[in-house]
Amino acid sequence: MSEGTNLMSHYKFEVPEIVFGRGMLSQVGCCARRLGGRKIFLVSDQGLFEAGWVDQVMKSLLQAGLEFVYFDQVSINPKDHEVEEGAREYLRHGADVIVGLGGGSAMDAAKGIAILSANGGRIRDFEGTDRIVRPLPPMVLCPTTCGTGSDVSQFAIISDTEKRCKLTIMSRCVAPNISLTDPDTLKTLPEEYICTTATDALSHALEAFFSIAATTLTDVHAVKAIRLLKGNLVEAVHEQTPDAMENLSRASLHAGMAFSNSLLGIVHALAHPIGGFYNANHGSINAVLLPEVIRYDLPVVTEKLPELAWGLGCKGADDEKVVAEVVQGEVDALLEACGAPRSLRSLGVQREDLPKLARNALEDACLITSPRQADFNDLLGILEKAF
Amino acid sequence: MSEGTNLMSHYKFEVPEIVFGRGMLSQVGCCARRLGGRKIFLVSDQGLFEAGWVDQVMKSLLQAGLEFVYFDQVSINPKDHEVEEGAREYLRHGADVIVGLGGGSAMDAAKGIAILSANGGRIRDFEGTDRIVRPLPPMVLCPTTCGTGSDVSQFAIISDTEKRCKLTIMSRCVAPNISLTDPDTLKTLPEEYICTTATDALSHALEAFFSIAATTLTDVHAVKAIRLLKGNLVEAVHEQTPDAMENLSRASLHAGMAFSNSLLGIVHALAHPIGGFYNANHGSINAVLLPEVIRYDLPVVTEKLPELAWGLGCKGADDEKVVAEVVQGEVDALLEACGAPRSLRSLGVQREDLPKLARNALEDACLITSPRQADFNDLLGILEKAF
Repeated sequence: MSEGTNLMSHYKFEVPEIVFGRGMLSQVGCCARRLGGRKIFLVSDQGLFEAGWVDQVMKSLLQAGLEFVYFDQVSINPKDHEVEEGAREYLRHGADVIVGLGGGSAMDAAKGIAILSANGGRIRDFEGTDRIVRPLPPMVLCPTTCGTGSDVSQFAIISDTEKRCKLTIMSRCVAPNISLTDPDTLKTLPEEYICTTATDALSHALEAFFSIAATTLTDVHAVKAIRLLKGNLVEAVHEQTPDAMENLSRASLHAGMAFSNSLLGIVHALAHPIGGFYNANHGSINAVLLPEVIRYDLPVVTEKLPELAWGLGCKGADDEKVVAEVVQGEVDALLEACGAPRSLRSLGVQREDLPKLARNALEDACLITSPRQADFNDLLGILEKAF
Repeated sequence: MSEGTNLMSHYKFEVPEIVFGRGMLSQVGCCARRLGGRKIFLVSDQGLFEAGWVDQVMKSLLQAGLEFVYFDQVSINPKDHEVEEGAREYLRHGADVIVGLGGGSAMDAAKGIAILSANGGRIRDFEGTDRIVRPLPPMVLCPTTCGTGSDVSQFAIISDTEKRCKLTIMSRCVAPNISLTDPDTLKTLPEEYICTTATDALSHALEAFFSIAATTLTDVHAVKAIRLLKGNLVEAVHEQTPDAMENLSRASLHAGMAFSNSLLGIVHALAHPIGGFYNANHGSINAVLLPEVIRYDLPVVTEKLPELAWGLGCKGADDEKVVAEVVQGEVDALLEACGAPRSLRSLGVQREDLPKLARNALEDACLITSPRQADFNDLLGILEKAF
C-alpha cells in the first residue's frame, strides 16, 4: 500500500434506496410491505419508546396490514449476547423483515440479528470482510441520531463482551434495502447526543475524504456532509432549531454514503478498541481523535485540500501550506464551538492502556484505507497527543 | 407548482450498483451471473461490434459460463418496432438477463426490450410515469459514450415512428441493477460524439441542478459533473487524452445519478419532440437549447448560483447579478470552445415547425420539474432565440 491521495482507478459504489423527510416514519409500513414483509421484527430501544417514536412505527406497520414483534433488549455499543438473543426471538416468531429504529446501537443490533437469523452461529464468526454466506432478511433502517451512518453502511459493529473489544463486520449484504430518515425524530434526541453523533458524522466525512479508496462518487458526499456540519452544527447544538437539526440529519446521510463506499481510517481504527474496552461513547472518542489524526494525515493529502477548504467555507486559501493550516484550524474551531470533549482522559481512558489500544488498532480493518500507513509507534503517538 | 429553488422537503434517492474502471468490461459476465443469468440477451450495435467491444463482452459472458443471444437491430433514437422485435427475440430464445452495451440508443433499446418481454403489449402503452406492472428481467448496462446517463437512470426514451415523436417512459424499475462503465470504450468513440454526448451530460447536470426536485443528494453529483466537464471537455474533444476522456465518463455518471433522481427541465422537454420529429442528435439539440434555457431560468435560481459558480471554477463571484453573468458566460464559453453546434437551424429544424414543437413540449414530463413554469409562448420564445 503506497501513500498518496490519488483516486481509485477501479471501484464500486452502492447505496440503499433512500427515503428522507419530516414525518416519513409514517411510511415505514409501506416500505416493509414493499420488501415482502408479513411479520416484522422491530428493533429499537427504551428511550425511543418513551419518546413515542416506536409507537409511530408500530402504527405505520399496522396501517400497512403487517404484524410485528417488538425487541428492545439493546444497549449502547450493542453486545454479542443481545444480538444472539434477538436472532432467537426473530426465528421463534417466524418474522420475515427487520426494521431498526434508533442510533447506531439499535441499527447495528438489527444488522447483527439479521446476520445470525439467516446464518446461525455466534456473531464473532462473522468478524472481518465478507464472511456472511446466506442472504439476510430484508431490512429498513431508520436513524434517530445525526451521526452513525449505519442506515446506509456496509458495516455492523458489535461488542465482544468476552474479549472486551468491538467486532467490525463488513459486507455489502449488511447494508439495508431501505434507509429511511425522519429528521423529526431528532426533536427528542438528548442534547448531549447532538454533539457526539454529529462529530461522528464529521469524522466519517473527513476519513472517507482522505481514504485511499475515495472516489469522486464518495468525495462529493463527504464534502457536502462537511459543508452541512460547518453551517449547522453549532446552531443545532446551542439552539436546536429544526432546520439546523434537519441539516445534521442530511449531513449524517451524506457522510454515511461516503464512508460506506470509501471506508475509513485511523480515527475509527483507534475508536473501535477504545469503545470496546471502556464501553465509551463512539462519537466522543472520534471527536477527541479527529484533530490529531488530521494533523498526522495532512502532509499526504495536500492535493485534496482545496476541495475540503471549500467544504469548510474558507475562501481564497490556495497556497498548500496555508490550506493545511486553515483546514486544521477550522476543524479544531468547529469541535471547540460545539463543546465536543477534547481529551481521551476525560472519557475515562487510562494512560497505561494506550499501548494495548494501539496494538489492537493495528488489527482493525479501518487502518487499510488510511492515507498514511501507520505503525504501532504512529498510533501510540496519536493516542498520547489525544490523551 | 410554484417557482423557486428550495430543496424538496421529502424525497427518495435511488441508484443502481455502480462499477467503474478501465478494463471493467471483463467483469460483465460476473455481473450477469450474479444477477442469476444463464442465457444473456446482449443488445448493442454494429459500430461497437466493429470496434471489438461486443467481442470483449461476449468473451466475458463465455468465461462466466453463460450462453448469450446477440441482438443489434438498433438504430440511433431507437424505434418502437426495433424494441418490439427485440422482445420477441428475447422470449423466443428464453433469455433471462439483459446486457446493454452502447450509447443511449442501445441502452434505451435494452430497457424497452426488458419492458415488453415482461409486460407484453406495444411500447407506447408504457409512455408516462409508472405504467409498468410486471417486474423486468435483471439488467446490466454499459455506456460507451460520455453523456447519456441511461445506465443509471429511471428513464427510457423510444421513438414512436407513427407519431414521429419520442415516448418518455419513467419508472424506477427501468433503472438497471448494475451500471458498468469501462472508460476504455471511449477510445473508439467517433470524434464528433465526444462533444455531442458530453454536452448532453452538461445539460443533464445543469437541468438536474436547477430542477425543483433537486436535493443535496442530487446537487453534489450535478456540481461534480459540471466541474469535471469544465476541467476536461475541451481537452477531451481536441486531444482525446485518456485521462480527460475518463473524466468525461465520470462526469456522465455523476450527471446521470443527479437527473435520474431530480429529473430535468425545459431543455429536455423541447429536445424530445425535436429529436423525435427530425431524428436529430440528442446531444446536439441540447447543446443548442441549453444557453437559452439557462438565460430563462437564471432569475429564479439565484440562491443556488454560488455553488454552481464554484463548480464552474469561478472564484470570488459573490454578487447575485455578477454570479448569474459569470455562470451564463462560462456555459457559453465551454460550448463554444468544444465546437458544439449553436443553432437549431444547423440541425435541420424548420422555422415553420417551431409552434408545433413548442406545443408538443408542453406535454413532456420533463417540464414538470422546470424551476420556472413555462407556457407556450415562453417555449416558443426559447426556440426562436435558439433557431
